[in-house]
Amino acid sequence: MIEGIHPEHPRAESLLIRKKLADGFKDGIVTPEGLCAHGRGEAFDYILGEETTDQALAAIEAAAAALLNADRPILSVNGNTAALVPSEIVELADEVGAGIEVNLFHESTERERKIVKHLEKYGAEDILGVDENYLTEIPGIRSDRRMVDERGISAADVVFVPLEDGDRTKALNKLKKNVVTVDLNPISRTARAADITVVDNIVRALPKIVERSKELSQASPRRMNEILETFDNRSNLSLTLKTMLSRLRKLSRE
Amino acid sequence: MIEGIHPEHPRAESLLIRKKLADGFKDGIVTPEGLCAHGRGEAFDYILGEETTDQALAAIEAAAAALLNADRPILSVNGNTAALVPSEIVELADEVGAGIEVNLFHESTERERKIVKHLEKYGAEDILGVDENYLTEIPGIRSDRRMVDERGISAADVVFVPLEDGDRTKALNKLKKNVVTVDLNPISRTARAADITVVDNIVRALPKIVERSKELSQASPRRMNEILETFDNRSNLSLTLKTMLSRLRKLSRE
Repeated sequence: MIEGIHPEHPRAESLLIRKKLADGFKDGIVTPEGLCAHGRGEAFDYILGEETTDQALAAIEAAAAALLNADRPILSVNGNTAALVPSEIVELADEVGAGIEVNLFHESTERERKIVKHLEKYGAEDILGVDENYLTEIPGIRSDRRMVDERGISAADVVFVPLEDGDRTKALNKLKKNVVTVDLNPISRTARAADITVVDNIVRALPKIVERSKELSQASPRRMNEILETFDNRSNLSLTLKTMLSRLRKLSRE
Repeated sequence: MIEGIHPEHPRAESLLIRKKLADGFKDGIVTPEGLCAHGRGEAFDYILGEETTDQALAAIEAAAAALLNADRPILSVNGNTAALVPSEIVELADEVGAGIEVNLFHESTERERKIVKHLEKYGAEDILGVDENYLTEIPGIRSDRRMVDERGISAADVVFVPLEDGDRTKALNKLKKNVVTVDLNPISRTARAADITVVDNIVRALPKIVERSKELSQASPRRMNEILETFDNRSNLSLTLKTMLSRLRKLSRE
């Protein structure tokens, strides 16, 4: 029994993830705003039935293919991502040959350093986004997230930005980068602006993206192109929303 | 411009409320888990269009009538409620002649004391739930919320428990108390177990409950009974859900 969370509590799993984030908060990795943002995701996850949908599986496959196919893929990590899936981020970076860049909405050098240390504990090396000498500004962003590493996000062709804010997704999109995201809200600005949106809990999605990347690393270029050409983010999001609507209707009858 | 929140940001209002809660957190009133829980509400509020629905207005009227009609009404306050609507809680207590009881899911004597002080700053007096000599246990609750004040929740006929957890709502219900709540999730266990559920943001709902209580304090007993007898929580929640479903559909087409 973890600090007042009884294992039989109907929301035990979601409370445990919340606990993980609260711990990340205590360690100085997660911001209060990040906790709130997580809660928003929880609500959508609750509507989704806390399961990876078929639409999410299709997006996961496309995400893996896009990252493997990239010339310069980069994984952008914020506090929540670092707290929830540090080992999976490191595994994914290895698997698809991507760099890892720390990029925060609420900037703080101290927090950045803590996130870097946290990721290094899980085996990450050469983390980008922290050396001021390499930081450069991308246009169209008001938050601190406009500063990116010229060796990382700035130079990348495919950018993986889980738990992202809408402003930056749009800005990255305008820079003609291929944007892959994980977002539990299928109608958020991020979900719509990205090229590939995995509508799933990052805790469930990341291990699946790693797994799929391992499988697809052996796939033929033809198979990869097929996956990327048949994936349509707009119709995938629309199907996801339909799933959510019918779940809501079902929940309301329970 | 408040700490990185640009006024033109499409989510500025919701970010400002979040900021209020983050401040409550820094003051030791709100827990990390409370921030997460707030985020969940935000998502539902976003689907509701961040507006008080007609169904919420009906529930607000019933809530005011139930509190005014009570022999021993009590307002149960947790960290999030204290951080978001302290003055409205004090006003409502005055208006309907109710006591105020601090009752926390994540108990901590220090936090309790801080919440009491915070409410006292807004004019609250004789706050219950903090003097151990008067605490008694109600059955069927696993969390620290099972301890209630024998002069407050334990003796009350109508209990106002905004932002409540499902376990306690059910337990209070079993004790034959009339439970009034504010919850943004119309299909949560709390929403369903309560007798009157206001599905609205507490920041919008509380001032309206105060206002309605003022108006109804002059109403005839016949009018009050009429309001309470015609209000049907189950059908109100079902209508709210319909509103949300159609909003989601609309949002998805935007």
